[in-house]
Amino acid sequence: MKKLIESVPNFSEGRRKEVVEEIIKVSEETQNVWIFDWSMDEDHNRSVVTIVGDPQAVAEAIFKMSKKAVELIDLRHHTGEHPRMGAVDVIPFVPIKGTTMEECIDISKSVGKRIGEELNVPVYLYERSATKHSRENLADIRKGEFEGFFDKIKSPDWVPDFGPKAVHPTAGVVAVGAREYLIAFNVNLGTKDIKIAENIAKSVRNSSGGYRFIKAIGVDLKEKGVVQVSMNMTNYKKSPLYRVFETIKSEAERYGVPVVGSEIIGMMPMDVMIQTCNFYLRIDNFSGDKVIENKLLDKLSES
Amino acid sequence: MKKLIESVPNFSEGRRKEVVEEIIKVSEETQNVWIFDWSMDEDHNRSVVTIVGDPQAVAEAIFKMSKKAVELIDLRHHTGEHPRMGAVDVIPFVPIKGTTMEECIDISKSVGKRIGEELNVPVYLYERSATKHSRENLADIRKGEFEGFFDKIKSPDWVPDFGPKAVHPTAGVVAVGAREYLIAFNVNLGTKDIKIAENIAKSVRNSSGGYRFIKAIGVDLKEKGVVQVSMNMTNYKKSPLYRVFETIKSEAERYGVPVVGSEIIGMMPMDVMIQTCNFYLRIDNFSGDKVIENKLLDKLSES
Repeated sequence: MKKLIESVPNFSEGRRKEVVEEIIKVSEETQNVWIFDWSMDEDHNRSVVTIVGDPQAVAEAIFKMSKKAVELIDLRHHTGEHPRMGAVDVIPFVPIKGTTMEECIDISKSVGKRIGEELNVPVYLYERSATKHSRENLADIRKGEFEGFFDKIKSPDWVPDFGPKAVHPTAGVVAVGAREYLIAFNVNLGTKDIKIAENIAKSVRNSSGGYRFIKAIGVDLKEKGVVQVSMNMTNYKKSPLYRVFETIKSEAERYGVPVVGSEIIGMMPMDVMIQTCNFYLRIDNFSGDKVIENKLLDKLSES
Repeated sequence: MKKLIESVPNFSEGRRKEVVEEIIKVSEETQNVWIFDWSMDEDHNRSVVTIVGDPQAVAEAIFKMSKKAVELIDLRHHTGEHPRMGAVDVIPFVPIKGTTMEECIDISKSVGKRIGEELNVPVYLYERSATKHSRENLADIRKGEFEGFFDKIKSPDWVPDFGPKAVHPTAGVVAVGAREYLIAFNVNLGTKDIKIAENIAKSVRNSSGGYRFIKAIGVDLKEKGVVQVSMNMTNYKKSPLYRVFETIKSEAERYGVPVVGSEIIGMMPMDVMIQTCNFYLRIDNFSGDKVIENKLLDKLSES
């Protein structure tokens, strides 16, 4: 696999396990894609699937899964805590290895076009694929949800990017787009003073003047007797993990507080490790080509 | 691939390309092994092959390649600068991912047994597989080379670990063993004073009181206008790369000299990056399972 992308489609079904399994099963018809994870939430009545593989193969598998979801999910009878507007509600494409944001934008558009034309579901391009600023934010698109879209779609502001200009009667509408990989990264500080975690969170987060692609809050981990700077990193390429970590360490020093640990929630691309090794070890000639496991992945796609 | 090992067999043929290609070709009969690299040296009259894959598959491929080498290479007519004692001269097995040194020792013994019994070539277990201290060092085993072994093998000290007690008339004898992955790592210092590189090399190398598994020398890179601490790391698990780097940085500071860069020669296992990220980012829950590319390798071996 010289090229890898990820997609994390959300489906509006979190109670009938057999339906979610049937949707996932159609991905097996496509080679060179792998389901990394999937989960169902009964209260949200929603499921989230993580699929990784060759870019074109992921695009094909996502189309097939969407087709199955449109067949099996009827939003007229759907209730749940999570806002939703479609049977397949949102489809992000994420570059992981050997692929650019531009390639993921292209893929989101070609999949969006097929969903619009072949499944008759209106498609809104969002985030990095958005055709207007007002469509970048998923929450803005989803406002009004399935029920509200029958009116909303008539507004000139909400003409779909692909597909019919009328809501699909049972499957609603869908948002398709490209975005960077999200990393959840937490740093623990050796103090019980939550004010310190809150101040440091402010120093690194975009909203308070910190790094552009960092969201951060202070959290009190009472059981552990420490406080935590808890972060969402929305673009690790431009606001790198090691740099944010170093800033937190430096700010903590000002209070005489040590950084006692950190944790990655979920997974991350190997690129994050390459960035980190490059920075700390000052390596001149380093890239994924130097890593045996990565070269093996490339070899596997040749054979 | 949940488990990976590497083997780097050396064959005593570096002039007839078709012979080396024929030896490499038999590895293709085995699934789940990949030739990462191979090179021939005319002056040494020797070739080196790097093969990576599932442990049992690598063992099988190495046996087949050895069989082919015994068929095609006749040491009675072999000349070259590099010392040698067998058609297949030395076979190291190296743990890369999800495997222990003990597993590689076991593999070296089972492959050694087959080579001894099925190919009638005497086998000496070396390095971590050695049955006596006097057989740990490859150079000690190889002393006397092919021509000298017809006498050497008669000594009670040099009874082979496997196979006949007589040298194979055309294929000689072979050393088989397990060892850790070797990393070649160089650190550049922003000065032209070679004395400083030499002093720092002394501070980190085992022979002068430094880290147990580090060999180091000072090198003058005149063209670049810097000096270098050039290292061979024979066990990155016990003398980790980041720790040696930090020591070099700290020693260089004493001279007011900056570390201006570093380089990895060849490849390295992802474990080295995991160690590095763990140390610098103080990560509590980090392992290869957190890395998408690594999880994909595991998925590929399931399917």
